[in-house]
Order: sequence, then C-alpha cells, then structure tokens
Amino acid sequence: MALTIWCNGKFDDAATRLLVEGTRGHRLVWAQKTSANVLQAGARDAATQSADVLFGQPAVEDCLEHERVRWVAVTTAGYTRFDTPEFREAFGARGAVLTTTSEVFADSCAQHALAMMLALGRNLLPSYRDQLTDHTWSYEKRRYESVLLTGQTVLLLGYGAIAKRLVELLAPFRMKIYAVRRQVRSERGVHVIAEDRLSSALGEADHIVNILPDNAATRGYMNARRLSCCKRGARYYNIGRGSTDDPPALVEALETGRLSRAYLDVFNPEPLAPDHPFWTTKNCFVTPHTAGGRADQDEAIVKHFVANLQRFAGGADELIDRVI
Amino acid sequence: MALTIWCNGKFDDAATRLLVEGTRGHRLVWAQKTSANVLQAGARDAATQSADVLFGQPAVEDCLEHERVRWVAVTTAGYTRFDTPEFREAFGARGAVLTTTSEVFADSCAQHALAMMLALGRNLLPSYRDQLTDHTWSYEKRRYESVLLTGQTVLLLGYGAIAKRLVELLAPFRMKIYAVRRQVRSERGVHVIAEDRLSSALGEADHIVNILPDNAATRGYMNARRLSCCKRGARYYNIGRGSTDDPPALVEALETGRLSRAYLDVFNPEPLAPDHPFWTTKNCFVTPHTAGGRADQDEAIVKHFVANLQRFAGGADELIDRVI
Repeated sequence: MALTIWCNGKFDDAATRLLVEGTRGHRLVWAQKTSANVLQAGARDAATQSADVLFGQPAVEDCLEHERVRWVAVTTAGYTRFDTPEFREAFGARGAVLTTTSEVFADSCAQHALAMMLALGRNLLPSYRDQLTDHTWSYEKRRYESVLLTGQTVLLLGYGAIAKRLVELLAPFRMKIYAVRRQVRSERGVHVIAEDRLSSALGEADHIVNILPDNAATRGYMNARRLSCCKRGARYYNIGRGSTDDPPALVEALETGRLSRAYLDVFNPEPLAPDHPFWTTKNCFVTPHTAGGRADQDEAIVKHFVANLQRFAGGADELIDRVI
Repeated sequence: MALTIWCNGKFDDAATRLLVEGTRGHRLVWAQKTSANVLQAGARDAATQSADVLFGQPAVEDCLEHERVRWVAVTTAGYTRFDTPEFREAFGARGAVLTTTSEVFADSCAQHALAMMLALGRNLLPSYRDQLTDHTWSYEKRRYESVLLTGQTVLLLGYGAIAKRLVELLAPFRMKIYAVRRQVRSERGVHVIAEDRLSSALGEADHIVNILPDNAATRGYMNARRLSCCKRGARYYNIGRGSTDDPPALVEALETGRLSRAYLDVFNPEPLAPDHPFWTTKNCFVTPHTAGGRADQDEAIVKHFVANLQRFAGGADELIDRVI
C-alpha cells in the first residue's frame, strides 16, 4: 500500500538519493523547513496532517493532532520530547508507533565511551598537551600513571543498545561489569543489578559510565549523595544526557579526589558555556556531544528508515528500535 | 638447587619485597649500581661472574664472558642488544637461555594501540585542544569527521605477543585484519601474509599498525616506497621501534595526504628532540614511548620473573617468553 511519508530531515546528497530511491512506490513529501541538524526538534508543518509516516524530528503537536499519522520515525537515539504519559496514551489508543534510530548510534557511542576509557588509561591527553606546548618527554611519569583496563570493574548506568554494544567491546578486557536497570534479567558477561544495589556497586567500580536517558527519574541522578558512594579515585564518564549530572557536585568530587577523572560528552544546556567550570576543572575532560557522530551518519539514518519502511508492511512488531 | 641470582633492576618497594620473597631458598645478589630505568642497558658488574641467573638489564659482555650464567632474564619486551648471531651462537653452545618480559607489556602495548586508533577515530585530540584553548563547541565538524572502526581493514606489521593481544581487542569491531610475518601460518580471525603480499595489503588497509622489532631487516622499513603503496588517507601508528620509520618520508606522506594521520610512540633516538618535525607536522601525534607502561609495571615484571624461576627447575622449555 502506498504511504504518504513526510520528512523534515536535512541529509547530504548521497543520503537524500538513498531516501528517494528507498521510498519509491510511496509519496515522499518534504517539510517546508527541514531541520539543519537531524538531532534537533523541528517546527510544526501543515503537510504532516495528510501523512501516514513522519520521518525526521516532527513537532510533538503534529504527531498528536493528526489522527492519520501511524508511525513516527525519529532520527535520534533519544526521544525525550515524546516520552510522556500523554503521548504514550494517545499513540497507544490509535495503534500508532514511534521508532528511534538507536541502532545507528549505539556502535559510535560505545566506541566513543571505550575511546575515553582507553585515552585516560593511556594518558593520551596530557601527552598531547605536551605536544601542543613545550615538547616535554614525560616518559617515566606517563608510563607509571598508565592504567590497564584488564581485570578492573566497570559500572554502566543504563542498559540499552549502547551499553550492550559497550559490553561487547569490553569483553576482551575481562572486566567485571555491572549494569543498573529497572528490569533485572541475567545477561551473559554482565551483572545486571537493581537500583537498591547501586551504592555498593558505586563503591566497587573503577569506571562509572553514565548512559542514562533524560527523563523525570534521571534528572540530577549523579548527585552529591551518589558521588559520595563512589570508590575513591574512580573515573566517571557521561555519554548519556547532561541533565543527569549535578555540575557543582561533580566539580567538588573532582576537587576532593573522590573522582580522579571525569570525561563528559553531554551537558545541560548545550553548547556548554565557554566560562563553565567543566572546561577548566582539573582532571575534567570535555568533548562537544560527539559520542554518536559518524562520518556516514546521514546514510546510516536513511538506511535504517528504509529498512524499517520495508518491515512496516509486515506489522509494527517487526520494526527495529520501536519504543512506543 | 639453590641458584645465585644477580639483579640490577631498580624496583619500587612492593616489587622489591616480592622479589626477595619469591627468590627465597636462592641467593639474591644486587648489582653495585642498579638501573634507574628498568628499560635501559646497565653497566658491567663484577658480581655477574659468580651468578647463575642475571635478572634486569645486564651488559652483553657479562652475559657472554661468564660461562656460569645459564639464564638471562631481561626486564623488557625488546632484546635488540642480545639479538646477534654472536650472542645466539655463544648461548646455544653452552645451553644458556634468554627470556624477555614480553607478556607483561603485550597487554599494555595492545591497549595503547587501540587507544590511539579510537582516539583518532573519535576526534578526542582536537576536542581536547579546544578545551585547552578557546572552548569552541565544534559539534557538527567533529561528529561528521568521526570514523567507526567497525568493518574497516587493519594491517599489522609484525605478529608477536602484542599483535596477538591487539587482535583479541579488535575482535568485537569485526575488522578485516592482515598481519605480516616471515612464517605464514593461518590464524583464527587474521589473514597472516608474507612480505610478497605487503604492497597489496598496504593498498587496502585503513589502519597500519607498526609493531616491528628493531633489527637489521626492519631498519627504515616504512620507507618512501612502502608509504607510496598505502591507500590514500590511511592512518599509521607506530608502537614498535622508531628505527623502523623513515622520518622525512613519513613527514612527506602526511603533507601530501597519502597518510591522513600518524600516531607515533617510538622514535630514533629517544627522547625525540624538541625541534623534531614530528612534534609540529600536521596530523602527526606524538606520545613519549608510553605504550608499554602500566602503573603496576615493577610488580608485574617481578611476578613474571618469579613464575619463570619456578619453571626454570623444570627445564628451559618451560620458560615463558623464552627467545634464545
């Protein structure tokens, strides 16, 4: 059956061609205004009312008001704007579904997290600072401050697609891996624990990797109380959402040495203000929300959508990364 | 049987205690002058003449002249000073053996190589430069220049303990892995190739990891001719030995874009002179020979020796990391 597919994503030429080819047989309608950034919320658009499928970053109101919309496919891994009781109820009532693009970003996010862990372990950043400044050869110091991941303990806050890929990447390091999530199910190679065991896991972990989504339950999650449970000298990484941090508490944990390092990729708000203490706090390292990035991002997003479009005919249960 | 064990390694207190305990029942003799750096050649020492075992970095002459010496255990992975026909012949003739500490450094070297590959893939260094300078938020640029290792091709120059560990670490990335070595034997997950197929492998590899030892056959190995075979835009890493590079040819390969990045940990000579072009060539990244370093290095070296000491009673064939 031919569908009307509305799109407000702004993709590069190759990805746009892939989308046109992949939606042949359907009617592809472009929004008046495409989103320059596939990761940002788009404006309301009149053409959504005659669409069956919305692909990109539609306005929440357009999804809710237009009864004809049966599938919303967002171009991000996160879907905070849609993750409300109101939205879930409305979509549930009319049998509409929402998919994310989680699979596209899981691998790059997991590789980013491992890159951070290894870069800190191998002291790559202070060595690069020496290269940028006085060409010091800090052989002894850097070697004796290098830390092997092998046999260490890591705690994953959140256990979705990114965490699962990270667990795969960490397997050869033979680490003890804890992961916190609401539903505790045993998993190969991972100790999945519930919230009530968090304090003890924080006290045991050498590395704490925050991959939490942004929602009412996670805001300010890594607060002073939880930070105080961390093993002294632990290393903390956030590739989830900036809202789950408590910036003053985090800066204090670094200043007192509770945490020996923090590597942050996400902030609230973004961009991180140039005078924010995170830029200059000792042992705090910042990247500009690059964890999900990949050179082939646009193509990968479109391929994900086209694959799902083929599955959509078979029913909603077939869809990859369906969350509602 | 009680052995006389001579040692010129300078270890931290914990490692020294381990050594004293681990050699109980034998006679442990310290050199007049211990080597401040466990990785550097030591001076000649009179006490070596009454020793059965030399542990540390003995002078080559002491090993050759004192017939009583049956086992030399060096504290490094490399053993260039001993890797001569003269030495092999003398040790072979009197049934003496030489072991390295390869196993101790293999994991840290492999983690260092992967750290470099991922740090470049995720653009961690330019982001850190922004943090050190003007706090720019280069979100789009960094994301779209990020490269996933997944599915790419890597060529390992040299295939010893470090390369084998690196292959383990790379397994979850599902890369195509080539490794060059003299003896071609098929290995799980690796295409082991001989020198005659090197040009074609260089032309296919996205990542070239140099893990070659220093010897007559490897000096200047990565010369202009071999660099010209590389796929345009390939990334090159050297954690082997600096002598295997040809610095002017390497700088030129970076300047012409033949190589898009080079990440060098080893140089000839070391330390790298502060005015060497490697420090300032665009897309060239330098670390001060830190690939083997680990915070627990001294303890790990002593444990390796003590384990081998227990095996030594069972015969030379039992020794870990025996090379002569």
